[in-house]
Amino acid sequence: MKLVPLLMFVVLAAVTASPSAQAPSANVLAPPKPLEAAKAWDESFRALPQPTNIKNHMQRLSARPHHVGSAYDKNNAEWILAKFKEWGWDAEIERFDVLFPTPKERRLELVEPTKFTAKLEEPTVSVDPTSGQKTEQLPSYNAYSIDGDVTAPLVYVNYGRPEDYDQLDRFGVSVRGAIVIARYGQSWRGIKPKVAGEHGAIGCLIYSDPKDDGYAMGPVFPNGPMRPSDGVQRGSVMDMPVYPGDPLTPGVGATPGAKRLSISEATTLTKIPVLPISYGDAQPLLAALTGLTAPDTWRGALPITYRIGPGPAKVHLKVAFNWDQKPLYDVIARILGSTFPGEWIIRGNHHDAWVNGAADPVSGMSVALEEARALGELRKQGWSPKRTIVYAAWDGEEPALLGSTEWVETHGDDLKQHAVAYINTDGYGRGFLDVSGSHSLERFINGVARDVNDPEANVSVWKRRQAQTIVRGPAEARKDARERADLRIGALGSGSDYSPFLQHAGIASLNISFGNEDEDGIYHSIYDDFYFYTHFLDTDLAYGRALAQTVGTAVIRLADSDVLPFEFTDLSDTVEMYVKELHDLLSHRQDDIRERNRQIQDGVFAAMKDPRAPQAPPKLEAVPPAINFAPLENAATALAESARRYGNALGSARPRLAGNAAALRALNAKLRDGEAQLIDAAGLPNREWYRHLLYAPGFYTGYSVKTVPGVRENIEQSRYADAEREVVRVSRALTRLAALVDLASADLEKLARER
Amino acid sequence: MKLVPLLMFVVLAAVTASPSAQAPSANVLAPPKPLEAAKAWDESFRALPQPTNIKNHMQRLSARPHHVGSAYDKNNAEWILAKFKEWGWDAEIERFDVLFPTPKERRLELVEPTKFTAKLEEPTVSVDPTSGQKTEQLPSYNAYSIDGDVTAPLVYVNYGRPEDYDQLDRFGVSVRGAIVIARYGQSWRGIKPKVAGEHGAIGCLIYSDPKDDGYAMGPVFPNGPMRPSDGVQRGSVMDMPVYPGDPLTPGVGATPGAKRLSISEATTLTKIPVLPISYGDAQPLLAALTGLTAPDTWRGALPITYRIGPGPAKVHLKVAFNWDQKPLYDVIARILGSTFPGEWIIRGNHHDAWVNGAADPVSGMSVALEEARALGELRKQGWSPKRTIVYAAWDGEEPALLGSTEWVETHGDDLKQHAVAYINTDGYGRGFLDVSGSHSLERFINGVARDVNDPEANVSVWKRRQAQTIVRGPAEARKDARERADLRIGALGSGSDYSPFLQHAGIASLNISFGNEDEDGIYHSIYDDFYFYTHFLDTDLAYGRALAQTVGTAVIRLADSDVLPFEFTDLSDTVEMYVKELHDLLSHRQDDIRERNRQIQDGVFAAMKDPRAPQAPPKLEAVPPAINFAPLENAATALAESARRYGNALGSARPRLAGNAAALRALNAKLRDGEAQLIDAAGLPNREWYRHLLYAPGFYTGYSVKTVPGVRENIEQSRYADAEREVVRVSRALTRLAALVDLASADLEKLARER
Repeated sequence: MKLVPLLMFVVLAAVTASPSAQAPSANVLAPPKPLEAAKAWDESFRALPQPTNIKNHMQRLSARPHHVGSAYDKNNAEWILAKFKEWGWDAEIERFDVLFPTPKERRLELVEPTKFTAKLEEPTVSVDPTSGQKTEQLPSYNAYSIDGDVTAPLVYVNYGRPEDYDQLDRFGVSVRGAIVIARYGQSWRGIKPKVAGEHGAIGCLIYSDPKDDGYAMGPVFPNGPMRPSDGVQRGSVMDMPVYPGDPLTPGVGATPGAKRLSISEATTLTKIPVLPISYGDAQPLLAALTGLTAPDTWRGALPITYRIGPGPAKVHLKVAFNWDQKPLYDVIARILGSTFPGEWIIRGNHHDAWVNGAADPVSGMSVALEEARALGELRKQGWSPKRTIVYAAWDGEEPALLGSTEWVETHGDDLKQHAVAYINTDGYGRGFLDVSGSHSLERFINGVARDVNDPEANVSVWKRRQAQTIVRGPAEARKDARERADLRIGALGSGSDYSPFLQHAGIASLNISFGNEDEDGIYHSIYDDFYFYTHFLDTDLAYGRALAQTVGTAVIRLADSDVLPFEFTDLSDTVEMYVKELHDLLSHRQDDIRERNRQIQDGVFAAMKDPRAPQAPPKLEAVPPAINFAPLENAATALAESARRYGNALGSARPRLAGNAAALRALNAKLRDGEAQLIDAAGLPNREWYRHLLYAPGFYTGYSVKTVPGVRENIEQSRYADAEREVVRVSRALTRLAALVDLASADLEKLARER
Repeated sequence: MKLVPLLMFVVLAAVTASPSAQAPSANVLAPPKPLEAAKAWDESFRALPQPTNIKNHMQRLSARPHHVGSAYDKNNAEWILAKFKEWGWDAEIERFDVLFPTPKERRLELVEPTKFTAKLEEPTVSVDPTSGQKTEQLPSYNAYSIDGDVTAPLVYVNYGRPEDYDQLDRFGVSVRGAIVIARYGQSWRGIKPKVAGEHGAIGCLIYSDPKDDGYAMGPVFPNGPMRPSDGVQRGSVMDMPVYPGDPLTPGVGATPGAKRLSISEATTLTKIPVLPISYGDAQPLLAALTGLTAPDTWRGALPITYRIGPGPAKVHLKVAFNWDQKPLYDVIARILGSTFPGEWIIRGNHHDAWVNGAADPVSGMSVALEEARALGELRKQGWSPKRTIVYAAWDGEEPALLGSTEWVETHGDDLKQHAVAYINTDGYGRGFLDVSGSHSLERFINGVARDVNDPEANVSVWKRRQAQTIVRGPAEARKDARERADLRIGALGSGSDYSPFLQHAGIASLNISFGNEDEDGIYHSIYDDFYFYTHFLDTDLAYGRALAQTVGTAVIRLADSDVLPFEFTDLSDTVEMYVKELHDLLSHRQDDIRERNRQIQDGVFAAMKDPRAPQAPPKLEAVPPAINFAPLENAATALAESARRYGNALGSARPRLAGNAAALRALNAKLRDGEAQLIDAAGLPNREWYRHLLYAPGFYTGYSVKTVPGVRENIEQSRYADAEREVVRVSRALTRLAALVDLASADLEKLARER
């Protein structure tokens, strides 16, 4: 099929055009259905998703390796497109061209004190029919590592986080000029070479320790779901906390005409060569280290003494890549809204994988397709959504959220005008509902979760999630789970396609999943395939059905509710919690530094000195000053007040809203703009692509969220004056939102007073 | 040399006789030296101990295996005796005859699903000259296991503590009719077969996991100090929390004429056969288990998936022992006191080992001998201790505190009349001072520790221990270490020869050690020898010197101080802390049970149910009732008041005490009786041998102390009415002590008022 990337833009333009075209349309003039009438349609919807269909989609999509640029990646996009069309959707493929390096050469050897050449190869498993598709599999590598050919002593750096290097400093171990070996986990993989490079290392190996997802956790594949000795986690190491997407087109879509940086200008490639390896390949390297024995928390599950080095193990690492442009095929499908076509509900999942990717991302993609089929079915039953629904199957998520980022960057203006919310899924598993996202949707998604049945327990998925928090959570979470009206949802960092929507474009977003009942160790390996998924994860696709029911219900309610279901008391409550956390963060840092300084001055480190294990004593550090949090506290209080007022105003005005299309449209326009008030065009300090002032991936954690990042990270990194400046900026954003909510309340109050 | 066990008794009788003989003696009538004059002698003492001597003693004593009944055990006793005599001490060997089983047959096989025969053999290490003394080494075994020949499925029970079986219940795994395999650690080894037997197991294997003292902790011997693959921890599994000492003579000395139980009547032998094994032997057994994967905290460091079973691994275990009587040779040496010969300061360390035992016990024994030499030297310089000093080298500590227990049981009446305090050491290492014992001696030993220099840091051992607590302790301990006048000493459970003195006879006791700077994995193996100790532990014996200085100083000060240095505010402060702990223990149990009941009733466990990993929900449990702690609180308050009064009274009377032998003797007699007030002749619930109401080894922890055991263990075991009864008993003991202290205070106040 010939790709028509501009077609989608046309479709979008058509939708874009509709708001102004709305007034004269019959659809728009027709009286809206009474509030809550949507209920029946989402109930009908929940009867439609079928596990068998999800399974069939999974088998089809994961039948062959389908990474960016592969034949089957394109084939899948075309198949998805055809399916959407078959189910009655307007659908198109939108193409972008991006930098996507693939391995040309990978070599890793122990050259001293003994010789060993790493295998760098995941073997075929006979019972697993797709594990032998060698010619189509991407070899194990870390995408966006630079080319490199280095030989140096090895140093073990635990998880390779900043705090691990602080510990190495105390031990008197430097990684300058060394190759580091870090284990996967605890931080996003791209952080490991970034921090290693900052400390002067010249190469970085990342291995999967059996303690984290190998035999220590359970039997290994094919006897169980854990990572076998030669299994390797592929993955991107691009510096995505700076910006995701095509490294050559930061902030703009990678369309044919876009201005592109040269590769040498791209700031998100690693600074040192990186290679991921299996624990089978890592063991001889780690066993050849001497020096200090690694502390307890640094020890993995290999049958060796974990020692830090440097050396005598010396390692030769060579990696070289094809630095090619590759095509991305985003599939974009839509159902035009009947009443508010200019208000878009967007829902996405990526379709590209590192190899066969049955769990990641095909499990989620197959669910999204089943929703699409069911929504098509619902239309045949007479349903016509009031708002426009856009379903997206993103390409290139694995390397760098490429497909979603380029699409958001390309369609920024349209999204600003039309997007109501973005709902994302990705791979999922068996177990407990897991939602993160915009807290203005917390109440909404709690309502959805109360109406979906858990396939294993005879309760709602909400109830089961509550039980999980009560049984496994700390005391405070348990109290919340029992006493708060809504279960708390998490905040979004990064790791899937919601990032550009929420953090760049300021669109209210949710990421929805199930999981946490099974462990596995096949992430980003050739063993993440249909055989594996149907033997060890959601084997009967029952949670796939629950996920389709959850997300489909959310989509229908967002599309059909007369008043958009944004709610602000849960948000303001969450903001107040963040402000308290920031207070505590600062005061704990003050206490810790004060205590450590006292210990240094009292000579206790000198008295503790062990001549056989010399450690440098910590250094005196200035105690952090007090920070003026008052602007943030005042803004949070104001937002809480506005949120309560809005709730009351909406309650009073509700009877008058029914059938009042103009009032609804005006109200919804304000509600839709809420999230954008939390965006600042100047972006976060040192990473302007990220513009959301409440949620961002951590600069030094990668996937993990840092809430109120400008304030929090400046405190963590001892830039207290900068933190205080950020307090003001965040306060202004909260105040903007409070003002907007007040405007909506004023309109509603006026409406309620009218006779 | 012919042994004359009764001779010691004669010596003791002579000493015993002296109190009544004191009055007319010139020594006693001579005016005592002014208070604090002892200072100079202990200062002189501290210059005397020499590392070279300690090293020479160690080399001699650990040159060959010297367990109970071995030729070299007797040879060592005779050599120690000769040394004491050479240094001017009155010394004798006292013999007892006790039940001490040694292996006749040991066999362990995996019989299903594959075959494997355990090696049960620690190999010779070529660089280690004594590791090859095969003909004299005791094979690896657990003493006081019963004979047995069993074949059954295997179950992995983690550390084999009661809470591990609670977890197994939740998993639906029973050990009834099974052989369990537990890892060493977390509880004393004798607890493991005891609890296994209580749950219906028919055999018990105990292995050393490499996570706990093998390669995970550091390089293994001979490349480092950790346990090699075939290293085995021997050790006793007698039910010593019921009573230690000869199983056939509970409560009485195992003298020739003593009435002995038959072996079948002895209650402290295990109920099931037990065998300790290496991790080399354990790995094939553990690897053959299937069933549930062990939870995170149950996993060791072997390169396998830890699974629980039962089976399919089936194991054949056969052990048979020679149930012989063996002779014990306690060496008892003394210097008769010049002023108060009827007041004894006793100091002991055992000399028997499981094999060569350079660390355990020879390091401590060598230090004790160096003290004895130095005290002899001091006498040549003119020193004559006011009180009688008794140094003891115990035999048979390893199997069951045999030598000390039989001696204390034999000489109970004498000890009651004469013993002031008992100071114990055992193996020691490099690092930090570690003292546990009677809190009436807490202030005293703090004073000693302030006067001994640490060999590594240029500070006192007190200061270094304070630094350790500040750097490594929790916040509360840090605060105490900074603000309290005295560093807290621990409470004594069991594990060395202080037990009979403190917990059976009610003699104030201290156990003193250094350590915590090195890890090792040779405990109770053939590798605990001179080569090992001088390569990996206190290689230059510098801490041996510090230990000799510490204990010697304590002995001299106890022997020479006019007023015995007991002090009661630290004790009452400690008791108040215990009472708070008991309060907290009860209220946490109430909270936990109330919370769990609520969860059960709210159906959260039902909602959490995972069909692939079924766990039985916990059962409803009655919430513990409130307990009347008031008697204990009142008694603790009264003791605190008495303690303060005594401090004041002593301060006022001090000038009048100097030279007043009668007043001193009357005061000291009361002080010496203090600890005995905390004894109750009826003993602890279900284990009458243990009579101390504040300190006992835990019935289900073994070595670890349970303070206020009658109350604490009854609460832990849900016998709340019994706990309340024990509250009363403990209160009475504290009240007795307070009354005694008040009597002393009244005398002193009267003395101070005299003109």
